[in-house]
Amino acid sequence: MRKRSSLSSDDAGLLTPGRSDAAGDAAYLAALLTAEAALTRAQAGLGLAPRTAADLVTAVASDLGGRLDPRGLAERARSGGNPVIPLVADLTAAVAEQDPEAAEYVHRGATSQDILDTATMLVAGGVLETVLADLSRTADRLATLAAEHRDTPMPGRTLTQQAVPTTFGLKAAGWRSLVLDARDRLAAVRLPVQLGGAAGTLAAFHAYAYEQDSADLGLRLIGAFARETGLAEPLLPWHTLRTPVADLAGALAFTAGALGKLAQDVLVMSRTEIAELAEGSGGGSSAMPHKSNPVRATLMAATARTVPALAAVLYGSLAAEDDRPAGAWHAEWQPFREALRQVSGAAENAAALTTGLTVNPDRMRANLDLTNGRILTEHLAAALSRTQGRSAAKDAAAASDSLPPHLSDPANYLGSAAALVDRALTDRTS
Amino acid sequence: MRKRSSLSSDDAGLLTPGRSDAAGDAAYLAALLTAEAALTRAQAGLGLAPRTAADLVTAVASDLGGRLDPRGLAERARSGGNPVIPLVADLTAAVAEQDPEAAEYVHRGATSQDILDTATMLVAGGVLETVLADLSRTADRLATLAAEHRDTPMPGRTLTQQAVPTTFGLKAAGWRSLVLDARDRLAAVRLPVQLGGAAGTLAAFHAYAYEQDSADLGLRLIGAFARETGLAEPLLPWHTLRTPVADLAGALAFTAGALGKLAQDVLVMSRTEIAELAEGSGGGSSAMPHKSNPVRATLMAATARTVPALAAVLYGSLAAEDDRPAGAWHAEWQPFREALRQVSGAAENAAALTTGLTVNPDRMRANLDLTNGRILTEHLAAALSRTQGRSAAKDAAAASDSLPPHLSDPANYLGSAAALVDRALTDRTS
Amino acid sequence: MRKRSSLSSDDAGLLTPGRSDAAGDAAYLAALLTAEAALTRAQAGLGLAPRTAADLVTAVASDLGGRLDPRGLAERARSGGNPVIPLVADLTAAVAEQDPEAAEYVHRGATSQDILDTATMLVAGGVLETVLADLSRTADRLATLAAEHRDTPMPGRTLTQQAVPTTFGLKAAGWRSLVLDARDRLAAVRLPVQLGGAAGTLAAFHAYAYEQDSADLGLRLIGAFARETGLAEPLLPWHTLRTPVADLAGALAFTAGALGKLAQDVLVMSRTEIAELAEGSGGGSSAMPHKSNPVRATLMAATARTVPALAAVLYGSLAAEDDRPAGAWHAEWQPFREALRQVSGAAENAAALTTGLTVNPDRMRANLDLTNGRILTEHLAAALSRTQGRSAAKDAAAASDSLPPHLSDPANYLGSAAALVDRALTDRTS
Amino acid sequence: MRKRSSLSSDDAGLLTPGRSDAAGDAAYLAALLTAEAALTRAQAGLGLAPRTAADLVTAVASDLGGRLDPRGLAERARSGGNPVIPLVADLTAAVAEQDPEAAEYVHRGATSQDILDTATMLVAGGVLETVLADLSRTADRLATLAAEHRDTPMPGRTLTQQAVPTTFGLKAAGWRSLVLDARDRLAAVRLPVQLGGAAGTLAAFHAYAYEQDSADLGLRLIGAFARETGLAEPLLPWHTLRTPVADLAGALAFTAGALGKLAQDVLVMSRTEIAELAEGSGGGSSAMPHKSNPVRATLMAATARTVPALAAVLYGSLAAEDDRPAGAWHAEWQPFREALRQVSGAAENAAALTTGLTVNPDRMRANLDLTNGRILTEHLAAALSRTQGRSAAKDAAAASDSLPPHLSDPANYLGSAAALVDRALTDRTS
Repeated sequence: MRKRSSLSSDDAGLLTPGRSDAAGDAAYLAALLTAEAALTRAQAGLGLAPRTAADLVTAVASDLGGRLDPRGLAERARSGGNPVIPLVADLTAAVAEQDPEAAEYVHRGATSQDILDTATMLVAGGVLETVLADLSRTADRLATLAAEHRDTPMPGRTLTQQAVPTTFGLKAAGWRSLVLDARDRLAAVRLPVQLGGAAGTLAAFHAYAYEQDSADLGLRLIGAFARETGLAEPLLPWHTLRTPVADLAGALAFTAGALGKLAQDVLVMSRTEIAELAEGSGGGSSAMPHKSNPVRATLMAATARTVPALAAVLYGSLAAEDDRPAGAWHAEWQPFREALRQVSGAAENAAALTTGLTVNPDRMRANLDLTNGRILTEHLAAALSRTQGRSAAKDAAAASDSLPPHLSDPANYLGSAAALVDRALTDRTS
Repeated sequence: MRKRSSLSSDDAGLLTPGRSDAAGDAAYLAALLTAEAALTRAQAGLGLAPRTAADLVTAVASDLGGRLDPRGLAERARSGGNPVIPLVADLTAAVAEQDPEAAEYVHRGATSQDILDTATMLVAGGVLETVLADLSRTADRLATLAAEHRDTPMPGRTLTQQAVPTTFGLKAAGWRSLVLDARDRLAAVRLPVQLGGAAGTLAAFHAYAYEQDSADLGLRLIGAFARETGLAEPLLPWHTLRTPVADLAGALAFTAGALGKLAQDVLVMSRTEIAELAEGSGGGSSAMPHKSNPVRATLMAATARTVPALAAVLYGSLAAEDDRPAGAWHAEWQPFREALRQVSGAAENAAALTTGLTVNPDRMRANLDLTNGRILTEHLAAALSRTQGRSAAKDAAAASDSLPPHLSDPANYLGSAAALVDRALTDRTS
Repeated sequence: MRKRSSLSSDDAGLLTPGRSDAAGDAAYLAALLTAEAALTRAQAGLGLAPRTAADLVTAVASDLGGRLDPRGLAERARSGGNPVIPLVADLTAAVAEQDPEAAEYVHRGATSQDILDTATMLVAGGVLETVLADLSRTADRLATLAAEHRDTPMPGRTLTQQAVPTTFGLKAAGWRSLVLDARDRLAAVRLPVQLGGAAGTLAAFHAYAYEQDSADLGLRLIGAFARETGLAEPLLPWHTLRTPVADLAGALAFTAGALGKLAQDVLVMSRTEIAELAEGSGGGSSAMPHKSNPVRATLMAATARTVPALAAVLYGSLAAEDDRPAGAWHAEWQPFREALRQVSGAAENAAALTTGLTVNPDRMRANLDLTNGRILTEHLAAALSRTQGRSAAKDAAAASDSLPPHLSDPANYLGSAAALVDRALTDRTS
Repeated sequence: MRKRSSLSSDDAGLLTPGRSDAAGDAAYLAALLTAEAALTRAQAGLGLAPRTAADLVTAVASDLGGRLDPRGLAERARSGGNPVIPLVADLTAAVAEQDPEAAEYVHRGATSQDILDTATMLVAGGVLETVLADLSRTADRLATLAAEHRDTPMPGRTLTQQAVPTTFGLKAAGWRSLVLDARDRLAAVRLPVQLGGAAGTLAAFHAYAYEQDSADLGLRLIGAFARETGLAEPLLPWHTLRTPVADLAGALAFTAGALGKLAQDVLVMSRTEIAELAEGSGGGSSAMPHKSNPVRATLMAATARTVPALAAVLYGSLAAEDDRPAGAWHAEWQPFREALRQVSGAAENAAALTTGLTVNPDRMRANLDLTNGRILTEHLAAALSRTQGRSAAKDAAAASDSLPPHLSDPANYLGSAAALVDRALTDRTS
């Protein structure tokens, strides 16, 4: 009854051109098997399992990754509500084929969540590595743009209206500082291993240890598991203490938004009527041969609309009842992965966009001139206020039709723009 | 540079045991091709394309669905930011192989969004069909439960505390009414075809019509396209008038929540200490042989946590600038599909859960007795108030240790429960 | 300990210039008292309370509204977690001052949620009335604009780039259709009275009826309460069947988004470099004397960003456990009211914005000319395709520097724009 | 036309019993005035304004806070879209009454956002102080509970079912670690002053400096303003670089969720049928004299449902276009303040709840016994697996009716619970 459609439900990314290849089922499958193998090795390291069993489980797990069918596992995951149950069955069977005794040590003492949470952190760690690199490349490129255009005047725009002049260098320096903020927030998230057993006490590990049991066995096992996986060691099992997931949710939403700021500015400044920027290789159109769309910025903007909502689901899952919850945990999986790959795609696009970005200082200048100097009204008002009071000066400036020569150059009304760029570019290395 | 991972990004559902097989890439691909073919036929019907070309495009499109690789298309979708561009290239090439002239009519006059929006409505229509059937089955089963347990007393619970008695029949009748509300809201959503060309004026269709052009050509073409696809005819092209998407977003969030109510009650009533309900075939545990988890309710609860956030993204995309927006539209695709398949999965689970649900009236009764009659304090207070004023009666009732015999039976304090069940079961047919 | 700040927490709207005066504490207070009085009258109508008591409660409730201090009630609401408890105490005391016997009938049989939900529906009903009127006014004004500018060409814009020409009439007609969709969705929401007593069985009403009790008493009482309040009669008590709240959530999010679409277009078209539209009376700036900001559109855009998130909370509250939940209901109150007043403010702003909107057809025309005819490339491609195949024609068109005279007028490439406007304006009356 | 209702829109908290008194209009008003005064003093410190003027502005601002009517300001904020514009008018007038010359220096060079953002940080700083204190108190109390109940066995529950034993000490230690995580995240957020002038270049400050102008004047002014307000110094003006707002959004959502976890557990464990915990002073009921509702946990749970959605709006506002955006900034104000006061209220409730919490070890023990030892099946399976293989042992354990004496005590199957508590309590000081 279950499979009523003749069509596969597989999602290869047809509807998500803005996301990266990261965090697919294959990556999760590999990480799940990595976690299982690492757990067996951790137990072997403490004398709780034969080293030969751990080696065999590791070898079989490594081999199995490429052979298992994610779709079949997905189907079998439904009755138990998570993919670890059928995966453990397959891994156990594959090990047993070679050594039934060794199979006794697969997943021993663990609960599904130990493995899935650990795998999730492994996947996240891998994705973050490329995201951090893309963000650094983006920041590097923005540093160059900021330096090159330190003194390039352009219209400052507020509430959609030209306000006073600014520089493109200051804008690029601002984008860079936001990208570095994103990078720093992502880099600061601690990715711990998960290990607690059925309800977070690690009781089964103690029980299966028989004579080797000791009061600190659980703590030592967590440490060993952390070392085997390369993940951090948690203070406590975090089945329902979801700090790592929430921290990543926030950092990913931040990154999506930070790149969204860059994207929104590119979208505005690329408008036909403004034309101060262009994506190097804009996307084509199925209908209009002349168009060059700011596709990367568009996809980044879409990501900035989506990830905050996913993060809200993840923050909402902090309020998880009991020792492992009925729903809050399950609600994390897909939003978490989706946030990872959306942000990962956005970071890729940001690096490419900033690399290929075409800047048009002439159009910036032409746009500054559009208002016949009204963009410098504030400057005039400040000058006039010297002699006639600020309120009267504002009125006089607003009514004025022309500017005295020394006030008519936007480049003379850039305030601290250059100093801010200089300071911002010494802040942090990309 | 793009493909840095050696792992496929495919998502076959490993992390989404709660969703159905609906709305996978293959379903979208088939719908996109269906839309392209229908558009050519619609043009042929108006004399704007040769009938033979339309027939060929239809045949080739039908054949192509099974042969195209969603992943390859997904890769090629990135540069233009949507999957229609490479799909049109493939379809055009495949048609041209057989008849280069016919290939001239593929996608002629249309914009990518015409096809993708139409395909989305086709996919939605297919998914809704099964969802509506599952909801009707669920409501049927709940009607039976409500009738069977019309007079089965159980504790009414408010703010987690036993309050006054209610009946399981009233609870089931309430679930049913919510399920029917969800069904009615989904069924009421109008799914229109999309057709506007580059910016919603259908200008290219007029231009390609040459001598056959007429003032009403665009309107007639929309009508013909609607008939060819079986979708509704929109008042206007809705590239940035996203009523259909928002309406479905709301109806899907409603359904997720409605089923989430059922799930939350099942979760509470399945608790070991309460044990009034059990899912017929609970899920196993990878660690604990004795457990029978309420897996379906858990997955439904997870869906109820996720879909409202997806709907928020979709409602947010209503505020789309221009004639086709840079981001708001792109942000719709994945949340929309994800909402479809999550809700579809939840409806499947609801039908199965209510079919297999085990009801334990003895435990309901035992739980009613847990408080030694304090659950009937309100009843006592009402009786006492007759003689001593309500406030004093409340105090007396609260202080009372035992109840007079005629007040001690919860079945005597069920108020309108039965009458409400009777009325609710005559409301609407499942 | 509670009041650690010397500052009042009152919120008079300092940070919400975009919301209306609707749904303040005073409105809720009045509605709560209206509900209590109506419930006593409903009981009197069924012979369950003396008519004199009902009249007195009605009079006292009416008088009390203006005298009670919302802040004091808010403070006292904390320990019980809802404002009805202290309100009932005050109302009971005020009635008792005049007639202790009559005070026995205040809130008799009801639970706090009966009153708060009913009051919420009353407040919503009042707010919707003005919102519907504002939306109708807005649609009226947009109909006028669409008719006036039925043939005014302007650039159609997609992904921020000029694509092909469209008309301002078509744009205004689209806005209107979205506004009417919003109006229709709000108008369709059914606002029922709430009445169920402690756990939805109305048992206490039966108990307090003594000899007048009958099987259908609860149903009759719900009907009478509905008539007394002017609200609809629900099928079942809906303490945890939150259809009315979810329906309104969706309709409000829809409306926020629909008005957000209008706002986003106004914001783009008001940009200094585009200047096709201007809000009649733009907002001033504290810094720049020359600026005229599109303030109404800005505030409407802000609303469109906020309300979907509030709606997500409300949809999330559908999944409410038990017969009255611990948190899901409480989480509804403020988001619901905030959505009401934000949407109400946006509708006010929409009516004013469309009334004062300045349209500049000359700038639309000038912007069309900005690309030296490239906006008509699609037109040229269609013409060329007649003789050289579509693909070659597209290339030729894209490479072309000038257009033949008959293709160079945007007004000749408007497709169905006028026909669509004509049809759309006959759809529904504002 | 604006004020169609005769009722005030004031919100004194009638519908938000779960929030604190923090961040009301009066607090914002005071902070806005503090910011204006500090800015004048900062200018005086750099020789850009007379010291006497700064002193007068400071005195007048300090006096004005209590005299201004937030509601009147709110009304006047509508036309310009923000409250700073009318506030500056009032402040300027009040200063001018005493010294027209000094009034020239009010708000000179600044933009509304400089003041509103700075005020927001000041308000946030004040609120965080009490929140951090409440979280520390809560953590202290949880440390005590964890130590006291280090060895108190209770059922570990997963997916609503009793799984294996755990201890209440471990549960309390987990709550504490989450509370400390929240505290640390809130404490780490940097709250900077905002200063950029119209478009972030500080140009007007330079212009008004006349002869005192210098390249580094803007940077020095930012530093002086930071010192005058006690806030941090930003790297760049952050009008559209919203790191501080997004960081706080995440930390507040985290805190809401962390306290929500505590609340959900209290709600489950307070259930009539479980009764392992009770809030010291539960809330009464308007209908049922016997009930004692877990009101604080209920309100905290409601907060955990709301704040993530508010945070999503704030993360969404990171993608702000231009140098000051039309909507994204305006959408921040109310969600930010609402998040502050909801979290502040939840922290108050958490401190009170944990202080008054009643723990019932006897019920924990009785609940452990409910399953006749089935909660120890895993223990038995581990023991049996020694001789018969894990799979057979699981089957045997699942089928077993009784446990050998040494396996029948839950206290013998607590694994690392005590060791984890000991370690967790040495982690960080509350």
